[in-house]
Amino acid sequence: METLSQSRAYEGIQGVYRHHSAVTGTDMTFSVYVPPHAPGARLPVLWYLSGLTCTHANVTDKGEYRRACAEHGIVFVAPDTSPRGPGVPDDESWDFGQGAGFYVDATIEPWAVNFRMRSYIEDELPALIASEFPMADLTRQGISGHSMGGHGALTIALRNPGRFKSVSAFAPIVSPLSCPWGEKALSGYLGPDRAAWRAYDACALIKDGGRLDAILIDQGTDDGFVHEQLKPELLKDACDEAGISLTLRMQPGYDHSYNFISTFMSDHVAWAAERL
Amino acid sequence: METLSQSRAYEGIQGVYRHHSAVTGTDMTFSVYVPPHAPGARLPVLWYLSGLTCTHANVTDKGEYRRACAEHGIVFVAPDTSPRGPGVPDDESWDFGQGAGFYVDATIEPWAVNFRMRSYIEDELPALIASEFPMADLTRQGISGHSMGGHGALTIALRNPGRFKSVSAFAPIVSPLSCPWGEKALSGYLGPDRAAWRAYDACALIKDGGRLDAILIDQGTDDGFVHEQLKPELLKDACDEAGISLTLRMQPGYDHSYNFISTFMSDHVAWAAERL
Repeated sequence: METLSQSRAYEGIQGVYRHHSAVTGTDMTFSVYVPPHAPGARLPVLWYLSGLTCTHANVTDKGEYRRACAEHGIVFVAPDTSPRGPGVPDDESWDFGQGAGFYVDATIEPWAVNFRMRSYIEDELPALIASEFPMADLTRQGISGHSMGGHGALTIALRNPGRFKSVSAFAPIVSPLSCPWGEKALSGYLGPDRAAWRAYDACALIKDGGRLDAILIDQGTDDGFVHEQLKPELLKDACDEAGISLTLRMQPGYDHSYNFISTFMSDHVAWAAERL
Repeated sequence: METLSQSRAYEGIQGVYRHHSAVTGTDMTFSVYVPPHAPGARLPVLWYLSGLTCTHANVTDKGEYRRACAEHGIVFVAPDTSPRGPGVPDDESWDFGQGAGFYVDATIEPWAVNFRMRSYIEDELPALIASEFPMADLTRQGISGHSMGGHGALTIALRNPGRFKSVSAFAPIVSPLSCPWGEKALSGYLGPDRAAWRAYDACALIKDGGRLDAILIDQGTDDGFVHEQLKPELLKDACDEAGISLTLRMQPGYDHSYNFISTFMSDHVAWAAERL
């Protein structure tokens, strides 16, 4: 692992790192904020998965998580959203290919070689964090994310019961089976068999028996994607039916941007802190 | 004035605007955050001047001022650092020309036509803010800034006694007469007569009789520019001699980046709120 930058922030260290991923076959960049802590202390970890077009940098620059993470003593990890680079397949649209990995392990060529963000986020990067950040206590993990990253957070938590003691999301895609972004991405990465998509659909995972203790979701009412793409009501229905405690906060006047995310970030960090 | 974007943040509105500046002869872009407030309320204004290479966007994205401004009810205005555009003179270096206006009214061609950031910030933009943002109470103004923008904040406040009830800066250039960035900029924009530079040098302005009630400065000890360019000790000496109350906080381990600025931003907003 290579350190690209480290900078003091809120008495902790905001770092950006790069490593070669065996899973994606590419170099991957991610950021980690380590809050101030006593020598030898072990700290819970909050994962934040970003949305379409984003890299680690969007939330690192604009997410305003450091104050809350410093206060609660939480390590904050922000991965990239896809493999990237000249040898990696891409698509000319912004909602497929590089920057739009959708947290799946692709099975369709040419994507299947590199686009393995599920395994990267579930397996490879946690192992790297555990080995390179000895203060990170991976027995206490939370996960959150925005939009496509909210989809990632929900589906990864549902597929790995017990791993994440805290789950939340900002304006997540709750059902790729039921929206244009999801249809495009999952058909492209996984092929036409919609049964194979269910492992990557939070609502379907819940219908198929997936359970979480509690979920916090913030969703702006002025988010231009809410009706066509995000559809929080589908998750509400699924959670109601399954008896999952969903705190769905419709935030009046907020949009899909980091102005929305940063406003409620400290609530999500606090939500994680209570559970970690 | 044209609205480029408006987005809800911390219950207020973060906007980005553009207008044609008669002073610079160019379109100028700036951001304004208006915190939540009662209808008809009038709110104090905090100006934030950015550093070399920056536009309004750097602090707007990374400054983490909205939470504190919402809490204290302060309007936050972030201008650009120079005129820009295809017809505007430029220089290939990053510390002169576009992105490096140094808050002067240039007198040397070809810069004198457009590079009039002093008049733009002191006169034209405040008048625009007053007319377009009726909640902005310009009888209660504070000013702050970073690096070159800290220089701008200090010198503009010193040249306009009584206008700013609060003055602070992050890692400011305190004496362009005494550092390479300043020598390059002021000789380029104003010519070789160093007497003409004194109106753009905080330490010289204080030696020449300029006074402020109090100044807050945060300076990171790991800032790579502190010894050669920023030299806070020169301002300390000038303030000591003039009897100006300077709170100079050397912040251990912090650098020159927005990780430093954002960490202490809420202190600067609170400093302004106490005085406004």
